[in-house]
Amino acid sequence: MKYQNIFLDELVNEVIPFWQNFSLDKVNGGFFTCIDDKNKVFDTDKFIWLQARQVWIFATLYEQVDNKKEWLEISQNGAKFLKKFGHDGSYNWYFSVTKKGKPLISPYNIFSYTFSCMAFGKLYKITNDECYKKISIETLKKIQERSSNPKSKWNKSISGTRDLKNFALPMILCNLYSELGDLVDQHERIKIAEECVDQIFNHFYDSEKKIIRENVFSDGRFSDSFDGRLINPGHGLEAMWFIMNLGEEFKRDEWIQKSIQIALNIVDHGWDNEMKGIFYFLDSDGHSPQQLEWNQKLWWVHLEALICFLRGYELSGSNKCFEWFQKIYTYTWSNFRDSNGGEWYGYLQRNGDKLLNLKGGKWKGCFHVPRALLILSQISKRLNI
Amino acid sequence: MKYQNIFLDELVNEVIPFWQNFSLDKVNGGFFTCIDDKNKVFDTDKFIWLQARQVWIFATLYEQVDNKKEWLEISQNGAKFLKKFGHDGSYNWYFSVTKKGKPLISPYNIFSYTFSCMAFGKLYKITNDECYKKISIETLKKIQERSSNPKSKWNKSISGTRDLKNFALPMILCNLYSELGDLVDQHERIKIAEECVDQIFNHFYDSEKKIIRENVFSDGRFSDSFDGRLINPGHGLEAMWFIMNLGEEFKRDEWIQKSIQIALNIVDHGWDNEMKGIFYFLDSDGHSPQQLEWNQKLWWVHLEALICFLRGYELSGSNKCFEWFQKIYTYTWSNFRDSNGGEWYGYLQRNGDKLLNLKGGKWKGCFHVPRALLILSQISKRLNI
Repeated sequence: MKYQNIFLDELVNEVIPFWQNFSLDKVNGGFFTCIDDKNKVFDTDKFIWLQARQVWIFATLYEQVDNKKEWLEISQNGAKFLKKFGHDGSYNWYFSVTKKGKPLISPYNIFSYTFSCMAFGKLYKITNDECYKKISIETLKKIQERSSNPKSKWNKSISGTRDLKNFALPMILCNLYSELGDLVDQHERIKIAEECVDQIFNHFYDSEKKIIRENVFSDGRFSDSFDGRLINPGHGLEAMWFIMNLGEEFKRDEWIQKSIQIALNIVDHGWDNEMKGIFYFLDSDGHSPQQLEWNQKLWWVHLEALICFLRGYELSGSNKCFEWFQKIYTYTWSNFRDSNGGEWYGYLQRNGDKLLNLKGGKWKGCFHVPRALLILSQISKRLNI
Repeated sequence: MKYQNIFLDELVNEVIPFWQNFSLDKVNGGFFTCIDDKNKVFDTDKFIWLQARQVWIFATLYEQVDNKKEWLEISQNGAKFLKKFGHDGSYNWYFSVTKKGKPLISPYNIFSYTFSCMAFGKLYKITNDECYKKISIETLKKIQERSSNPKSKWNKSISGTRDLKNFALPMILCNLYSELGDLVDQHERIKIAEECVDQIFNHFYDSEKKIIRENVFSDGRFSDSFDGRLINPGHGLEAMWFIMNLGEEFKRDEWIQKSIQIALNIVDHGWDNEMKGIFYFLDSDGHSPQQLEWNQKLWWVHLEALICFLRGYELSGSNKCFEWFQKIYTYTWSNFRDSNGGEWYGYLQRNGDKLLNLKGGKWKGCFHVPRALLILSQISKRLNI
């Protein structure tokens, strides 16, 4: 079977039915995400960024795979829950709420904002409903307000001692502004893209060590500290395909070439030669990372890597990219995919054994698996492979 | 060799020399704790609770093992650094500072307070220096002020939705008030001990499931949530020996009997029958815990378990306690101890393989290994084993 068919079949016949059948809260609205491998909901809290991601996925399926009414309905029902319960009335998006929508955890996490912004932006694009547009635009303003201190008042760092900036914000903005399309003025989109790509290439990327750092000083200098030495290869690879897309859209061939080279460097460094797979975290100087989960293998890291290398191959014809795509495909398909069908497993120990029996949880929802399968099916269709 | 000699020899000839030789910052004062297995400092940040714990350890060695002048000096030099750089001038103890003492992370963590209080209390007991007394007493006031909301303004939970209380506070107060001795009025000490033991036995202990929960509603009810289902067997076992000590001091035989029974229940439930050792975290309903490190084996868990069961055996003669002591001793000695000497390793994968090559880090300092070796040597001396 061709790659394009493998990916589309897995998306439409395995992964999406799982979320359609087991995640909908038909009583209160919104989605359950904590679902085990018996398809049973084991926790009913609702995590706003995962709610928003599922809204985005079903809207995107409706837009790009098939105009199925039920997909749009699922997306819009999720949006209704988010609109009513996801924020404090001023588009400050909570981290989590109870199944009935009562707020649990404060709006400390910028990802609750970025994915809500993206979800409502996509629904506006499909439906032209001004209400969705307003929520997306108001949320974007909040993101811009918080961009100098994304953790807001929950930031525990004392200002002035070691002021580091974090890779997550420019990375996700690359994706958000791509997604928002016409919702944002074209000049502003180019400006933000240039700023983010510049920061990533010239501040977060360490051209000597050939790695992307999670945290650097505001001028890009290295901080010799746990935060400064931290590497998250999956983050880097995900950002590289965001930049490849921006490079294609804004016709910046140098962005494409550089992001492909950086991606190859990241995976060379992040691949576990002994037990296969890509590490979750590493210390850039080879010390012990503080993250005890550092050597585990996570589903999203490998799926983002697959997109990155197949997209790199499409844009450049690089054999190295295609070889990495194949190598990671083999690992991913045999280790994360559930041969009994449905959504994939997410968390493996270093040796590939399952760490958790969940299909969805507090940090894993209806997002990376279906998004990757969709994008991979689209790229491989264009490549006719 | 008798147990008492094994423990004392390991303490005095291996573990303490490691910290004496490799952790002292002779330029800036205070202690480095991030030290790898080549005895090399790999990070220079200073974590206040670990600074305070090392002050306490060296003062306690001076008090209970040998009146060595150098041990008291090490403790007092650490105290000098803490006094000058550890707090904001009002005894709000930072989480961490740079090697030179510049504040890095805000005073969000109550453990920075409890261990500073304990360290200065011990130094006062030994030296009668009123300055130490003042710091200990002022810090105790701060702890009392924060006891209803230990995370203070860094608490992300929205009040009124799911107000849970955490096991760590009554647990550490059992230890703190034991340690402070005459520094606190005897009536208050008994009152606090009764309150904490009551909370632990009647709220945090689930007598049906025979486990101790990390978080419960304020009236002790179970919360069916990630936090509510969380179990940390090591925490429970450590608290049980704190309560055994209180039971002996305040002549509450029922506390001793009950804490021994609970400890046996905890270890029955927390022991990994397949790969040995005690799990770090479990979910009380058998679901996937959110902590990705849940199945790892941590040094402190096993050392606190050793104290718990040897003390239980001493106080009750229970064979079950002694059998668990021996079983855990065998596992601990062959897996965590470094056969090349020095401080022990701290973090193992589920199967016992080393996860990190560090001897000390951001969360592991000069504390659990030497405290356990000291207490175990004292108990086994009394038992003449």
